[in-house]
Amino acid sequence: MPELRKDPVSREWVIIASERAKRPTDFAPKEAPAAPTPHVANCPFCVGNESMTPPELFVLPTKNPTQESEKWRVRVVPNRFPALVPGNGDLQRFDVGPYDRMAGIGAHEVVIETPDHSKTVGLMEVEAVYDLLETYKQRYNFLRQDQNLKYILIFRNHGRIAGASLAHPHSQIIGTPTIPQMVWDDIRGVNQYFGYRQRCVFCHKLEYELEAKERIVVEGVHFVSMAPYASRYPFELWILPHRHYGTFTHMDEAEQRDLAKVLRETLARLYYCLSDPPYNYSLHTSPCDDHSKYDFHWHIEITPRLSTAAGFELGTGIYINPTPPEHAAQYLREVEVPKL
Amino acid sequence: MPELRKDPVSREWVIIASERAKRPTDFAPKEAPAAPTPHVANCPFCVGNESMTPPELFVLPTKNPTQESEKWRVRVVPNRFPALVPGNGDLQRFDVGPYDRMAGIGAHEVVIETPDHSKTVGLMEVEAVYDLLETYKQRYNFLRQDQNLKYILIFRNHGRIAGASLAHPHSQIIGTPTIPQMVWDDIRGVNQYFGYRQRCVFCHKLEYELEAKERIVVEGVHFVSMAPYASRYPFELWILPHRHYGTFTHMDEAEQRDLAKVLRETLARLYYCLSDPPYNYSLHTSPCDDHSKYDFHWHIEITPRLSTAAGFELGTGIYINPTPPEHAAQYLREVEVPKL
Repeated sequence: MPELRKDPVSREWVIIASERAKRPTDFAPKEAPAAPTPHVANCPFCVGNESMTPPELFVLPTKNPTQESEKWRVRVVPNRFPALVPGNGDLQRFDVGPYDRMAGIGAHEVVIETPDHSKTVGLMEVEAVYDLLETYKQRYNFLRQDQNLKYILIFRNHGRIAGASLAHPHSQIIGTPTIPQMVWDDIRGVNQYFGYRQRCVFCHKLEYELEAKERIVVEGVHFVSMAPYASRYPFELWILPHRHYGTFTHMDEAEQRDLAKVLRETLARLYYCLSDPPYNYSLHTSPCDDHSKYDFHWHIEITPRLSTAAGFELGTGIYINPTPPEHAAQYLREVEVPKL
Repeated sequence: MPELRKDPVSREWVIIASERAKRPTDFAPKEAPAAPTPHVANCPFCVGNESMTPPELFVLPTKNPTQESEKWRVRVVPNRFPALVPGNGDLQRFDVGPYDRMAGIGAHEVVIETPDHSKTVGLMEVEAVYDLLETYKQRYNFLRQDQNLKYILIFRNHGRIAGASLAHPHSQIIGTPTIPQMVWDDIRGVNQYFGYRQRCVFCHKLEYELEAKERIVVEGVHFVSMAPYASRYPFELWILPHRHYGTFTHMDEAEQRDLAKVLRETLARLYYCLSDPPYNYSLHTSPCDDHSKYDFHWHIEITPRLSTAAGFELGTGIYINPTPPEHAAQYLREVEVPKL
């Protein structure tokens, strides 16, 4: 018998279709694993090809480089085909019949995560993942000074099916001139939950999952990764901090070191369990304007792209997930991961 | 400069990235057009293979068949791998920590649209599309008698990328034991709009679009197809009735004949303009329990699957659409469609 499960934040149900239960081997890799070549001549993100990107906005330099080719660890550049563009502050809205329109002002940056074309976050040194998180923090803190940006999403598309048009490991940052309705809806979900139970729904989820144990994947000191109870996607994973705070840049150094470990190990388990599956991850954090207004609990959502959202998902918002999250977590816990 | 556009019902913005403006030829077909074979030996939906499906729930017989192979026009059978299953009425909800759970009770049927494997709705005779709509109506009216079903979605997945696992033309019907949150959100959007403007937002959209003309694709007597102003997907299309009513089965015969024409021509234009693209469509209608409680305006949403929702879309709910709907509508109006 399939089961319906409801997430208290999105308030949407998912169908866990356990009859269709899918194991990792049922998700045959749809594309070959990342090329093992560390350098690709015409890749704009590879070392030596820096002139192929727009001028860089930020760089984490290598400490004591021994040669020119080692001079950076992480670079941030403007997206060459930006979804939103920097503007002069005119966020006026116009009505167009029953609709609203505004200029596409915002920010769109690309984080080149490593000079090595063949790496991916799940296979990086923990130190390199720490650097990546540091870059996220610095760019976020820089961008949030821009009064035009109401929300900033940091995300990663891995694999063509997940929307990555370039194979070289990279993340993206988009700042929007309005708080997305989905973010409002999540904040409303958190507030309603607080209103009737007087506790944070994410703290409650964490407490519940740590007790139940069956959906936990990696348990760090400050962060935990788990397959959420109401997973919409097969092998969906969330990483949450134990401590309740809404804006991810407020993590301290010890937390950041722990997150680097937990994120890296979670993605390594995904990599080895499902033969480098396509996935997206994004950092769900408070809106920019005043984090103290929103009682949020920041976290990372990782969504492997192993199934296709079809007419039913698009027409109802209810996802059909053929892999119960308990099974997914077990597979991920049990997969053998080579030592770093 | 890209543009942000907001839909008043979903209240979500979309980014119309006109710099990336895509023409039909930029969307190279990702899969070959439907096989031209009218009969496939091992297809469970082809004539003569009726025993390969579970026993049929409904059939539209051929008037005066001359041979055995012509005995049906449309068949409805249970889905062999149902997402939700018929149950005995126990819709009790259980709390699981902060989550809710209920049994996966519901309905899941497959509508085999034609005996001809090579057809698709856009290439069918208008009469066959009328039959298909008649089948939708009859199954909907039958299923809504089941008190366990709170919402019924009728939808079509066309092409592998859009989630169709079988090529033979078919639609699906899923009845859910709860009203999806997305449907509630839409109803709330409609009500809020009515609350401050005292008019139906869909009636307003229709009036506005018929005046603006640039996003209209097919104009029937009772139905209109258009590329909505805040299209999330390239070449997204909506078909709306002029008359304001919430439940699609309330269309009268003249309206049904007109819808068959408008739907068929709209899908034919899509077929010829984009070389048989993958798409989903779904009927957005009132919840089952009491249509008079919801002041809805039913319509069909057609979403071609030409782009990939990536980390930004999943993380914010804001879609990036590289094809302005004005351009999409013009391409669709101008494409040459062979006479029926």
